Amino acid sequence: MSYQAKATLQEIRDAVEIELAAFLSEQSKFLVSISSDLAPVAGALSSFLLDSGKRLRPLFAYCGYVSTGTEVTTPIIRAIASLELLQACALIHDDLMDGSDMRRGKPSIHRHFESLHVQDELEGFAPAYGSAAAVLLGDLALVWSNQMLNSAGLTSTQLHDVMPIHDEMRTELMAGQFLDIHEQTQKTADLNRSKTIARYKSGKYTIERPLHIGAALSGAQSPELFAALSAYGLPLGEAFQYRDDLLGVFGDPSVTGKPAGDDLREGKRTVLIALTDKESTEVMRETSRKYFGAPDLDEHGVKILQEIIVSTGAKEKLESMIDELAEQALTAADNELIGENAHPLLLELAKIATKRSA
Amino acid sequence: MSYQAKATLQEIRDAVEIELAAFLSEQSKFLVSISSDLAPVAGALSSFLLDSGKRLRPLFAYCGYVSTGTEVTTPIIRAIASLELLQACALIHDDLMDGSDMRRGKPSIHRHFESLHVQDELEGFAPAYGSAAAVLLGDLALVWSNQMLNSAGLTSTQLHDVMPIHDEMRTELMAGQFLDIHEQTQKTADLNRSKTIARYKSGKYTIERPLHIGAALSGAQSPELFAALSAYGLPLGEAFQYRDDLLGVFGDPSVTGKPAGDDLREGKRTVLIALTDKESTEVMRETSRKYFGAPDLDEHGVKILQEIIVSTGAKEKLESMIDELAEQALTAADNELIGENAHPLLLELAKIATKRSA
Repeated sequence: MSYQAKATLQEIRDAVEIELAAFLSEQSKFLVSISSDLAPVAGALSSFLLDSGKRLRPLFAYCGYVSTGTEVTTPIIRAIASLELLQACALIHDDLMDGSDMRRGKPSIHRHFESLHVQDELEGFAPAYGSAAAVLLGDLALVWSNQMLNSAGLTSTQLHDVMPIHDEMRTELMAGQFLDIHEQTQKTADLNRSKTIARYKSGKYTIERPLHIGAALSGAQSPELFAALSAYGLPLGEAFQYRDDLLGVFGDPSVTGKPAGDDLREGKRTVLIALTDKESTEVMRETSRKYFGAPDLDEHGVKILQEIIVSTGAKEKLESMIDELAEQALTAADNELIGENAHPLLLELAKIATKRSA
Repeated sequence: MSYQAKATLQEIRDAVEIELAAFLSEQSKFLVSISSDLAPVAGALSSFLLDSGKRLRPLFAYCGYVSTGTEVTTPIIRAIASLELLQACALIHDDLMDGSDMRRGKPSIHRHFESLHVQDELEGFAPAYGSAAAVLLGDLALVWSNQMLNSAGLTSTQLHDVMPIHDEMRTELMAGQFLDIHEQTQKTADLNRSKTIARYKSGKYTIERPLHIGAALSGAQSPELFAALSAYGLPLGEAFQYRDDLLGVFGDPSVTGKPAGDDLREGKRTVLIALTDKESTEVMRETSRKYFGAPDLDEHGVKILQEIIVSTGAKEKLESMIDELAEQALTAADNELIGENAHPLLLELAKIATKRSA
């Protein structure tokens, strides 16, 4: 495949999906050639990757590429598609660490393998099998993401240019993930710490770095272009995570694919929670302490916490922060360094990243 | 650094350690620049990597390199040292999945972070924090292993030659690990299945693939050399895993750094166990079912299982299989394609890999 850089987002999504499917089919064959006992691994990863997904990171990488690049070839599509496998690793391990039962409306990977254990009447402790499987499927997704990039058919120069950014992004992601689980162990909420987490575990990793990866693939060298992409990507990345925080508390399960108030049950110390804490009365704080992070938090408890968040004005405040950040991003996108192929897509993606309902 | 390819194993170990220390120091600085809360992550990974380790995989990769290569440069040392970070990922995740408390005489990573949680009186459930930290530190080690290889300073040709082998090795490793945890859920032992696991999770990954990686780094292209290295590496890799199986059951804790009979407590279906099962009487099988895989297995239970393993002749049988495989490897090492720099090291390493007490 090779076409002019004027594709729609949906065309890119389709192209990414085709390359992912081809890669996963090859890898699945390899696994099953080792042992047929690996068929459930291949099946679960393929279904995780192909059944759904917004493909945000490949799309942002695509925008980074067409900021200056012109001809979009199959190796480029494969390289940007590899980001979906990295994201699969992050989600599989995230769900395991958070003890989340659902992902995209289906059982999370550890729950899926736990169910297989029960269904096939295997020996041992089903949850332990589920957890171990999730550790390994996440690892495999991480390895495959790298393999898909390495074997995309890029030139040596492209690989050389993209690798340092790709490596730094992955370290940032894992650092952000650690800070996230660490934050849940702290006695008090802190707005600055929560902002750092949002930036590393999600903002940079979802938007800024994919843009940079795309730009690097196009052969772009100018620090000004990378800075222009950051000026768009960093605020939008923050806004993206804040929208995610709101959905984790107020999202409709039928749309998010996760139970209502999941973040509240898991005790996620997001920016939304830090804002709430700051404006809470002592009575509100006492009530929060009782419900927030309680593994058995029910609908009633979720409702109480939601009410506190709304009544402190934290929800409204975060909504206006999202608007402001999105506005900043849109202004930054209006930069002559960012080519005319990328510009309309960046505007469209900004909407998807911040207004999305799932 | 650059010297003729006549170093001793200890000199290579030292060189590997220097490069690992330098890389970890850089990465630690990067982590702490994101947040001081990441200092325990940097500290734990550095200590895990630098306090001990036999450096087997870098040493085999070195042998692969000097099979034909001559000048050993810093980029080569960095590239082979990166395998230690991959191994760190495997061990950290392995200990988490197996619920092992100890590694190399110290608390395993999940236990270490669990202790930090208790010691610092953090909020939440300490074991969950320990597990999540182990997931992420393993992920980070995997990412860093790749980053250390990517940034080693290899030529484009070297990177291009080594990547497909490196990627395939990592998939094989994760596949072997999955088969290992899956085997523990089976109702019966099976010698062939256990052999496949030994080959993938350990044999190929510890010996054959590192040899191939080294050879690829030296620019070797001849399929005959790769086959010669496999003829040495595959049987030795199997023997290595069988020695590990014996140590997991009969090893002295003061030497292995793990509690006595750890594999029995975890219900590891190794080749040793498959051999035992094959020659067990019905009474022995019944006794085994009672003790094998019991999380609270005590010294008494370990002794009973050890006695069964010895009395079926499985221990002796596995010892003679190790001898035979080691003999095969030594014969294969005697190949004119394998240069004179590699040959004596391969003999020395064969001894270390199969006679080791830890």
